[in-house]
Amino acid sequence: CHPLYAAMPTTVFEHMSGLAREAGAINLGQGFPDDPPPAALAEAAARALRERSQQYPPMAGLPELRDAIAAFYRRRQGLDLTREHVIVTSGATEAVAAAILATIQPGDEVLVLAPAYDAYAPLVRRAGGVPVFVPLAPPAWALPLAALRAAITPRTRALIFNDPLNPTGTVASPAECAALANLCVEADLLAICDEVWEMVRFDAPAHRSLMAEPGMADRTIKIGSAGKIFGATGWKVGWIVADPALATVVGRAHQFLTFTTPPMLQWALAEGLADDAMMDRQVRAWAASRAVLNEGLAQAGFAVLPNVATWFSCVDLARSGIELDDMTFAERAVREAGVATIPLSALWEGPDAPRQIVRLCHCKPAAMLEEAVRRLADFH
Amino acid sequence: CHPLYAAMPTTVFEHMSGLAREAGAINLGQGFPDDPPPAALAEAAARALRERSQQYPPMAGLPELRDAIAAFYRRRQGLDLTREHVIVTSGATEAVAAAILATIQPGDEVLVLAPAYDAYAPLVRRAGGVPVFVPLAPPAWALPLAALRAAITPRTRALIFNDPLNPTGTVASPAECAALANLCVEADLLAICDEVWEMVRFDAPAHRSLMAEPGMADRTIKIGSAGKIFGATGWKVGWIVADPALATVVGRAHQFLTFTTPPMLQWALAEGLADDAMMDRQVRAWAASRAVLNEGLAQAGFAVLPNVATWFSCVDLARSGIELDDMTFAERAVREAGVATIPLSALWEGPDAPRQIVRLCHCKPAAMLEEAVRRLADFH
Ligand SMILES: CSCCC(=O)C(=O)O
Ligand SMILES: CSCCC(=O)C(=O)O
Repeated sequence: CHPLYAAMPTTVFEHMSGLAREAGAINLGQGFPDDPPPAALAEAAARALRERSQQYPPMAGLPELRDAIAAFYRRRQGLDLTREHVIVTSGATEAVAAAILATIQPGDEVLVLAPAYDAYAPLVRRAGGVPVFVPLAPPAWALPLAALRAAITPRTRALIFNDPLNPTGTVASPAECAALANLCVEADLLAICDEVWEMVRFDAPAHRSLMAEPGMADRTIKIGSAGKIFGATGWKVGWIVADPALATVVGRAHQFLTFTTPPMLQWALAEGLADDAMMDRQVRAWAASRAVLNEGLAQAGFAVLPNVATWFSCVDLARSGIELDDMTFAERAVREAGVATIPLSALWEGPDAPRQIVRLCHCKPAAMLEEAVRRLADFH
Repeated sequence: CHPLYAAMPTTVFEHMSGLAREAGAINLGQGFPDDPPPAALAEAAARALRERSQQYPPMAGLPELRDAIAAFYRRRQGLDLTREHVIVTSGATEAVAAAILATIQPGDEVLVLAPAYDAYAPLVRRAGGVPVFVPLAPPAWALPLAALRAAITPRTRALIFNDPLNPTGTVASPAECAALANLCVEADLLAICDEVWEMVRFDAPAHRSLMAEPGMADRTIKIGSAGKIFGATGWKVGWIVADPALATVVGRAHQFLTFTTPPMLQWALAEGLADDAMMDRQVRAWAASRAVLNEGLAQAGFAVLPNVATWFSCVDLARSGIELDDMTFAERAVREAGVATIPLSALWEGPDAPRQIVRLCHCKPAAMLEEAVRRLADFH
């Protein structure tokens, strides 16, 4: 077997969800809502199961969904897109895989900010590339532009940029985005932009994609996720958006990863992405659940880091008076307190890992969050 | 971009389906039934949309589906399997990708029989491996065991074996399977067995997996497809079956390709795979459609090669009195006769490509097949 995979553990998300199931714990680890997605969306999928073809949709996705994705970005982010910019994938993970496999060659260096979603580095390595990690620093997690610039070599080919950022729940400022775009243009880098949390923004201003910065339109692969927008993580429908020539090449990788994506889900999402009210209701519900968790944790004496986006809140254990490192805390909290969390260092490679931050998922019913806070307070 | 993908055309299946749509042609190119999958299956999926969680299922698949797949193979193929042998994937294409990415390292040689499904070679190359093509010869397409043996070098790591074989519709004999297993054991090869057509066998005896041969249990990755078993090609649910240690490693690749597969489809298939009558009805219907196409073609003067499995029939153009090569025939037949086919040479790399065979998909309504035969006869 390939040594990369032979030596690899299961993802931290799967690992913690497994422990949570075993221990009967409240699962604030893996990021998913407990509530079902909007009923109208499930009904649209059930309708498509009855009324539409169940056979292969086109490789790039149903034209109706590609149009809906382009229209959604024109409407909500002012991006000048058409169907030709869009390839539908079987989840955003497949979009990340297709983007990396289509663009990274053996020997290419790829800048990755830490903390990072755990799929990026293995995929870069499997493509023959070398992930070069540049650390962010808590609590503000500001973009380390000088360090990024210093990490660039003649072999640097791409940057992977996750904004809003999982696990921190922070967003880059307009000035940071402009500077990052400058850096990509100057160093002739491709930007693989994981923007799956683009709609899950609370106090933050509306999302602006790195793709919208000057010089970035034809060097950006933007990745989106229906699971995140609608709180339907099992549906596994994502997409890439890129200049049509670049999208075509990513589509070549996609055609040999999954080829296509179930049509009943594509039909339903073509309806959902036209429905701003449906999307905005989801965000309002998550803003409320974030408030419940953050306020509860603060009242119980936990130091919650500022978060303005994603389904996640981070707790600084040291500043909460807890001496355990994040791994030990997470392993003990799931077993002894009955609350699953994600240790931030599991999402960190490279130098300067913070060792006392854990991530909690807040998109849960208020009663569940309140019970989790009580359990953690007792454990504390 | 990676030169492999930058230079790659869209798959022949997508290409021909596109031409068929443009020309309003009968599409006997890409392999998919026109009829919907069994109504009970779609109803089960609609029920799961209402009643089950729409969030991430476990990475390896729902335990209920993994159990159903293991039980299905115990019942139908006498394989001694449990849940631990099974990883559910987002279609068999993802299963092929995960198997290759998990096992093939730069410099590894991989034996591939020609003709071959068009995903194998690009995936082997993207993994850094070298596909070594060994040709089969029409009309019997017998396994070229001596040529396979001669192609083995110290770098040969794996064999990709598609049985029943798309595009020919033929199956390996028990003696051929035993000899192939011997060869894998002697040369210490991994066998990546694409057995997606295992249930689509007509006059052929019940499927026997290469995995069942002596010495193969821990060196085989067997790939299956719900889309093929139930005629639901858009559902994109497949799986790999392997010794648990090997399955775990393939699961590592899977976790960073799609992570998981939509739960409503997994729930429905857990029911479907327990229903032998449902599966067998599908096969009987396809046996009938094969007879309609093969007899119609024969009466119209076309030379149909013997086929005992898959959704495909092959026509030998030369022996049908047609002088065009397969590419020219396919491009002209879709535009001028209004019938899309697949030229066999599009599924061939390496020496000895037959240049006058086209593949037709027969799992279509009888009236459609009869009309297609009329059109081809006029064109002829
Ligand atoms: C694919 S499991 C991980 C889900 C997720 O995005 C997260 O929890 O960060
Ligand atoms: C993924 S499109 C190809 C479908 C198929 O298996 C075939 O037509 O051979």
